[in-house]
This record gives sequence, structure tokens and C-alpha cells, in this order.
Amino acid sequence: MKVGIVGYGNLGKGVESAISYTKDMELVGIFTRRNPKSIKSNIHTTVYSIDTLYEMKDAIDVLILCGGSVKDLPKQTKQYAKDFNVVDSYDIHDQILDHFNAVHQASIEGKHISIISVGWDPGLFSLNRLYGQAVLPNGKDYTFWGKGVSQGHSDAIRKIDGVVDAREYTIPMQEVIDKIKSGEDLSISNKDMHRRECFVVVKEGSDVKKIETEIKKMPHYFEGYQTSVHFISQEEMNMKHKNLSHGGCVFRKGITGSKHLFHQVMEYRLTLESNPEFTASILVAYARAAYRLANEGQIGCKTIFDVAPIYLHEENRKELIKKLL
Amino acid sequence: MKVGIVGYGNLGKGVESAISYTKDMELVGIFTRRNPKSIKSNIHTTVYSIDTLYEMKDAIDVLILCGGSVKDLPKQTKQYAKDFNVVDSYDIHDQILDHFNAVHQASIEGKHISIISVGWDPGLFSLNRLYGQAVLPNGKDYTFWGKGVSQGHSDAIRKIDGVVDAREYTIPMQEVIDKIKSGEDLSISNKDMHRRECFVVVKEGSDVKKIETEIKKMPHYFEGYQTSVHFISQEEMNMKHKNLSHGGCVFRKGITGSKHLFHQVMEYRLTLESNPEFTASILVAYARAAYRLANEGQIGCKTIFDVAPIYLHEENRKELIKKLL
Repeated sequence: MKVGIVGYGNLGKGVESAISYTKDMELVGIFTRRNPKSIKSNIHTTVYSIDTLYEMKDAIDVLILCGGSVKDLPKQTKQYAKDFNVVDSYDIHDQILDHFNAVHQASIEGKHISIISVGWDPGLFSLNRLYGQAVLPNGKDYTFWGKGVSQGHSDAIRKIDGVVDAREYTIPMQEVIDKIKSGEDLSISNKDMHRRECFVVVKEGSDVKKIETEIKKMPHYFEGYQTSVHFISQEEMNMKHKNLSHGGCVFRKGITGSKHLFHQVMEYRLTLESNPEFTASILVAYARAAYRLANEGQIGCKTIFDVAPIYLHEENRKELIKKLL
Repeated sequence: MKVGIVGYGNLGKGVESAISYTKDMELVGIFTRRNPKSIKSNIHTTVYSIDTLYEMKDAIDVLILCGGSVKDLPKQTKQYAKDFNVVDSYDIHDQILDHFNAVHQASIEGKHISIISVGWDPGLFSLNRLYGQAVLPNGKDYTFWGKGVSQGHSDAIRKIDGVVDAREYTIPMQEVIDKIKSGEDLSISNKDMHRRECFVVVKEGSDVKKIETEIKKMPHYFEGYQTSVHFISQEEMNMKHKNLSHGGCVFRKGITGSKHLFHQVMEYRLTLESNPEFTASILVAYARAAYRLANEGQIGCKTIFDVAPIYLHEENRKELIKKLL
């Protein structure tokens, strides 16, 4: 199958390398809005201007869209879904349904397949919430994120007057995880499950006390959270806070039984040295699924909930039954 | 949807209670080879003789087969697959493909759906091996079972001369799990990943030294494993070793990246107070899937690899996207 990449940031680079680990995919090219000559691909993929994309339509089985969820994907996915099979990682949770509807219409019109919101949350974490609830309907689930950088929170700090650079880590409360695992039945919100640690570079002469207060009181982002703020130099920021590691876990705790009641715990955990590389690897697996669904004649928009696991793996059913079931 | 249960051992009892936690299922009855009058259901389900099953064919949407994998399911599943939509938990890994082929033929002939080998291993653990390999093709996976009772190993000990009762616990080696999680790249077999702890009741006057040696040297089951044997009284056995807890974990460790390499770890863990109750809960979720697939007009045998997650959950797509994606 022949794959194209739209966008060459961290995610696009991750998709490029993830494809190199597959046996059944060929990377046709990277398509960019920038000057293609200004981009040097990590593993010598040809870089094209996005303007040439439609000319190469017949050479591409699936297009993996690697733009951002705020500005790029709401336009790009529905635009390309009409003429290509597409996969994206749209991750603004409360707007996924609108995105789904818009992309679905385009895919149906163009008789193509699209799979949206592919990643780990939304994505593999969502799947584990679904499997957990389906198997243990009498229970509760808990999702923890981190330790890892939240781009949204980092951006929010950078907008404060006097701030030059900032990095926010979301960190799950280990004591809450321990309580849940030990069987306690907690009704708690995200604010009690996570703390926030911020590293901030400020302009010389800034009032750091004021900035710290402004961060801690910021509604939605920090208010109500246990937040710590560290002021550091730009050198320290560059040296210690540029890594892209992340992770988290989903728990489902449920009770089964009639005469006797039994506690059952399902736990799913990711420990990632590179968040974008991992998300990219998931996108590539679902690109395989999109290709196979399209070959079956299916059309329209799908989510990871709609894709049977067998479509994701290189091997055929017989081998999968023998080796993995 | 209307469900029937065939067989009323621990698994059948678990299915009965799991159905009571659903909103969309009605339990039609329990079907048994024993005298129905000899069975008192835990939650007042009507118990029928298995001989009346075919008479009630039109009243049953899905039949959940709760017999054993050695003697019951190889016959039962293919027998009933012709006239019913069926779900089973057939768990003899290296014979699943044969079972699949036999059941598939019967389901196709009768134009019904069957889903086989549903449980946690084979089952949810298999799914996590598949998702892990599909997302991180450049990696290794490790499955740990336990701590929990292995029925097969317990039975093997019971066959030794002089043994009255026995219980074997499979226990994962925590130090191996720690090494894997800390990033070590191990090439190891089950024997290095698990130890075995046996509790044995013997006839008075038996040569316990000889029995211990016989256990530890038993090929396939214990030879090569770190095994400990404890001789206890029947009273202690009944008091301390009748619980059905189990669990385990599946790890997928992979490497992504081109210029820089990143370690990524996916981890799935189950901690179960009742193994049969949990397996039963999975069977019930896949019975829902069988019903929906049948309503779509699909026929033939499926495994958990073939079933899209959305078929398992009571809620519809729109709600699932809003609440879980």
C-alpha cells in the first residue's frame, strides 16, 4: 500500500519512521505547505509541495494527515476526505462528533474511507474505556495522564506578560492510583487525580511572585489544581525540558457476582519516550486498516471503535489465530 | 436480546450474574445435562433439561456455551452453531484453529454467527498482543500469568500416586517484570518468567520426598521451572486454597524513530478476584456482539480479532464518541 504524509512536524516525522518499520507500506512522499526545498527528510523521502497532491491522487492509497487539531485538521481532513482515504489524529475531545459528521459527509460524497481521532487519547485509551465498560458494566473508570508535557498548558503560561518560555508537566497523583488499585471506591475529578509542575523562563526584572500567582489562579488550566512553579534560565529549559516523553493509564474497576461479590480491575498503561512517535505508530496501523476497509468497498468516516482489530496487523487471520490468540 | 446458558458450573453461574448487570439482555434459561430439578439457580433463572433446547430455538437470540474446553466445547460448539448464534470460551491455544474451522463450517451451514475463544487468554490478552504488535512492529511482547491457580497443573499433581488433593499457583517473577519495565531487552521463555507453587494433600504414610521429586521433574508441567511444594492438610486446603482469583499482564515493548530511537511500552494488566466471573463477563459482552452481527446478516465463525469494539457496548456510536472517545 502506498502512503502519503501531509505535514512534516514531529508527528509527520514519526509517521515517516513508523512506515519504515512496516513490511507492507511504501511512502510515496511528504506534502508540505512550506517550500519543499527548505525541508530535508530524516530518511530521504521525497518532499512535494502540497499543491501537487491532487496530481498524485492515483499514486496514493492512504493519506496520513499530520497537522494540528486547532487550525489544520478541521479544514484539511474534510477537504482531503473527498478524494483520498485519510487518517487523522484530531484530539479536541468535545468537538470530535462535529468533526466526525463533517468528515463523514465528505468521505461518503467521494466514496472513500476516513478514520479520525486516532492516537492514544483519543485512541487506545478510549478503546480501553470502551472494553472496560462493556466487560464490567457495574464499575467505574479512571484515566490518568502523565507524567508528560501538556502543550496546551505550556502555551497558556507563555501568554502571560513577562514570560519568555514555559513548559508544563501533568503528573498523576501516585497516592490516588494506589488507593484505586487497593480497591477504594473514589468519586474524584481530574483536579484531584493530577498535579501540575511548571518550568518558566521570564524577562529580566519581571515580578515572579505575580507571575506565579497568575499561573496558579488561571481558570480551567490551573485553578483548583495542586500546582508548583519553578523559574529557570533559558539554558536550563533547553537542556532539561525538551524531551517529548509522556504516558498515562486507564483503570476500569468493576464488581461481578450475585451471591458473592468480586472486585475486578483492568489496567492499561503507556510509558512513552516519545509521544509524537507513538501517536504516529498508531496512525500508521490505522492507515493499514483504512486501506483494507477501502478495498472491501466500505465508505464513510470511522473511529477506532468501528475498526476490528484484525485490520491493524500485517499478518492474516490464520497466522494471527495460531500465533496470538 | 434473549440469551440462553448451556452448562451451570462456575462459568455458567458467572454468565448468569453478568447478564443481571446488563440493561439490554434477558436470560431465557439455563440448559443442563443434569436433572434440572437438582439445580438451584443463584438468581432464580429457570433451569431446563438440555433436551428441550431445540424446542426453545426461536426464543433464544444467543446461546452462551459454558462447558469445559477438553470434553464439552469441541462437540457442543459445532453442534449448536448450526441452529443458534453461539459464543464459547474454548481455551486450548494450539487447537483453536481446528476448532475455528469446524465451528465456522457449522455456522455457515446454519447461517448463524459464532464467536469462539472469548475470555482473557485467549481473549483480551490476545487482543493486547495484537494491538501491541500492530502499533509497535519493531518490538517484543511478554505475557505473564498469575498469581492464580492453574487447573491443568493442579490436575497433573492429583494424578500422582498418593496425592489426595492439590492446587498449583502460577506466579510471575516480579524481578523479570521489573527488568522488562526498566528497559532491559530479555529473550526468555515462560520457564524464566514464572515460578510454580504447589499445595498438596497426601494419603497418610505417603513418601512425601518421592512425591515432591515426582512433581518437580514432571515434563512440560514443572521440569525447568522454579517449583516449591508444600504438604498441607485437607482442612487447610479447604480453608485457604479455594479462591478463584487470577490475573496477569501483557507487555509490548517497542522501538520507534529514525535519527533518534525511543523506547515505548504498552502494558495491560488484569487483577481478578474471580477468574470465572470475569471470563463470564467477557462472554456476555461478546454475546451482545454476536446478536448485533447476526442482525446485520453476517454469518460464520469470528474471533475477538474480528469483532469491532463498538459491537460490545450497550450505547450507540454517537454516545460513545461523546463520552468515551
